[in-house]
Amino acid sequence: MVKVEFPNLFQVVRPELNALETYLQDDLQQARTGVREVVGHLLAGGGKRIRPALVFLAARFGRSADPDQIMKVAAATEMIHMATLIHDDILDEAMVRRNVATVHTVWSRRVAILAGDYLFARALGLLAETREPEATLIMSAVVRQMCDGEIQQNVAALDGELPTEADYLERIGKKTALFLAESCRLGALMAGAEEWKQRVLYTFGWSMGLGFQIVDDLLDFTATSVAFGKVVGVDLRSGVLTLPLIHGLVNSEEPERSRLTKLAQARAAGQDEWVEMQSILGRSGSFAYAQNVAQRLVREAVDSLDVLPPTEAREALLSMASYVVEREA
Amino acid sequence: MVKVEFPNLFQVVRPELNALETYLQDDLQQARTGVREVVGHLLAGGGKRIRPALVFLAARFGRSADPDQIMKVAAATEMIHMATLIHDDILDEAMVRRNVATVHTVWSRRVAILAGDYLFARALGLLAETREPEATLIMSAVVRQMCDGEIQQNVAALDGELPTEADYLERIGKKTALFLAESCRLGALMAGAEEWKQRVLYTFGWSMGLGFQIVDDLLDFTATSVAFGKVVGVDLRSGVLTLPLIHGLVNSEEPERSRLTKLAQARAAGQDEWVEMQSILGRSGSFAYAQNVAQRLVREAVDSLDVLPPTEAREALLSMASYVVEREA
Repeated sequence: MVKVEFPNLFQVVRPELNALETYLQDDLQQARTGVREVVGHLLAGGGKRIRPALVFLAARFGRSADPDQIMKVAAATEMIHMATLIHDDILDEAMVRRNVATVHTVWSRRVAILAGDYLFARALGLLAETREPEATLIMSAVVRQMCDGEIQQNVAALDGELPTEADYLERIGKKTALFLAESCRLGALMAGAEEWKQRVLYTFGWSMGLGFQIVDDLLDFTATSVAFGKVVGVDLRSGVLTLPLIHGLVNSEEPERSRLTKLAQARAAGQDEWVEMQSILGRSGSFAYAQNVAQRLVREAVDSLDVLPPTEAREALLSMASYVVEREA
Repeated sequence: MVKVEFPNLFQVVRPELNALETYLQDDLQQARTGVREVVGHLLAGGGKRIRPALVFLAARFGRSADPDQIMKVAAATEMIHMATLIHDDILDEAMVRRNVATVHTVWSRRVAILAGDYLFARALGLLAETREPEATLIMSAVVRQMCDGEIQQNVAALDGELPTEADYLERIGKKTALFLAESCRLGALMAGAEEWKQRVLYTFGWSMGLGFQIVDDLLDFTATSVAFGKVVGVDLRSGVLTLPLIHGLVNSEEPERSRLTKLAQARAAGQDEWVEMQSILGRSGSFAYAQNVAQRLVREAVDSLDVLPPTEAREALLSMASYVVEREA
């Protein structure tokens, strides 16, 4: 797998992605001042547009793609993503996201909650406009799983019980992988792709999504805030344990294991504690372990595409998969 | 118009409303522990179930009502309503609702935001299950208008410009009346009622909805917390001006008008200021004025039903309208 720069990843669907920006701007002009400003702020902040890109790429495997239908689905996925980011940022009390101030800090918590609700409703309405009932059904289920997973995670965090690696994978499946998998499937479905192709693309999105989230959680330990575009160490401070720490708490050697447990319980509050935790996790091989799990999953994603025709869309999906594990921010 | 006790209002659709409770409980069992508990708490708290009742009653004017389809729509309206209540309560920092502790106080703000999101998504998904695209489209628009109206209200409140009666009516139209109007229309539509009947029922819901909200805002000044089931004076404390105060600030006589302006600017923070404001608004006839506007709107709602056949469903809608202006809590 060759390292790829992000901006070039989606070259194949660049025209669609450019059209998407215009589409999102135009669509949200229907809202009154409040939502329009909030969403304008978010759109200006940029973002990877991974979900719409997956929709556009997956649609290339269909036989009868109607560009307007595909655009609606792509826009809906980005709106849902934006809504979850706005609500997450309130919950995490995050100040910055993508190096831009978060909505609730620029406006208020009230505006942030309402703008998120607006975006959810608009997204599901857009999907209904396609007149393909599956579209709304699938994305409604995605949103519910995300919420359910997050609530579960929150309750688990409060309970203080150590999650297993299986718990962790279940949670990130609901939180991240399902959305990416369904974006792929829905793009293919809307474009009239055969059912087996829909399933293949779903599988690709699922495995890549798990890999993506593991790397994201890893970067929360190892990246710098500037490169990452958001504050690091957020998970632990919210009491959420991710793979490196789950691994380290089981696999590091005494006396470091006891020390790590103490640091985790205190949520590695200070800078010194944070650095100490990093070095213990480095020595226990926990970062390398998480990286390996991510690599294995991404390899599964890559292999699943073998059965698809070798088009430029497939190449783009392969590059995307390799980017997921190679990225440093 | 005869005064009616609330519990008897929906006698005609009591079987459907009882089935609704079971349906909501069962449906939300699909969620994991978190959402299930939150929603169980809310369902146990009761509520008037006005929107589902409107759906069931309006469906009686159709020719081919499929009970399962109507139930899905009714359940969706109540879920959307519950979601907005949960999110509103976070925003208002309300501690009680319907004499029951609010979600964010029992659990956390995080759980409350996510449970609301879950309910929105489930509601729009349920509507998609009817395979009638209008259902999702209509309710998606309702949610967006509600959010948009609330954000607008919030921005207006911060700006400090005095809203006119027309501004107020526009806002409560988005916030309350549209939802009631569309619940009526959708019930009729799903039951295969003629389009003119759908329009009549929409108009009924719209006018009654405006009347309902005006009375609600009036009770926020005049009711006691215990009877009302929530804390009074919330609107003003959030900087939102409603009809009695909008009227009083224009129509009270000096020097009371200046005093009222001062009290409003200070949001009548103390108990003494609150009582003083109440007595000024009483003398300026502002409570009576608001009550009259509500009565006029409800009379319009009642009159709009003249063209419908005189069934027990029509009688129930008429009783409901009279309840709206007669209620004291």
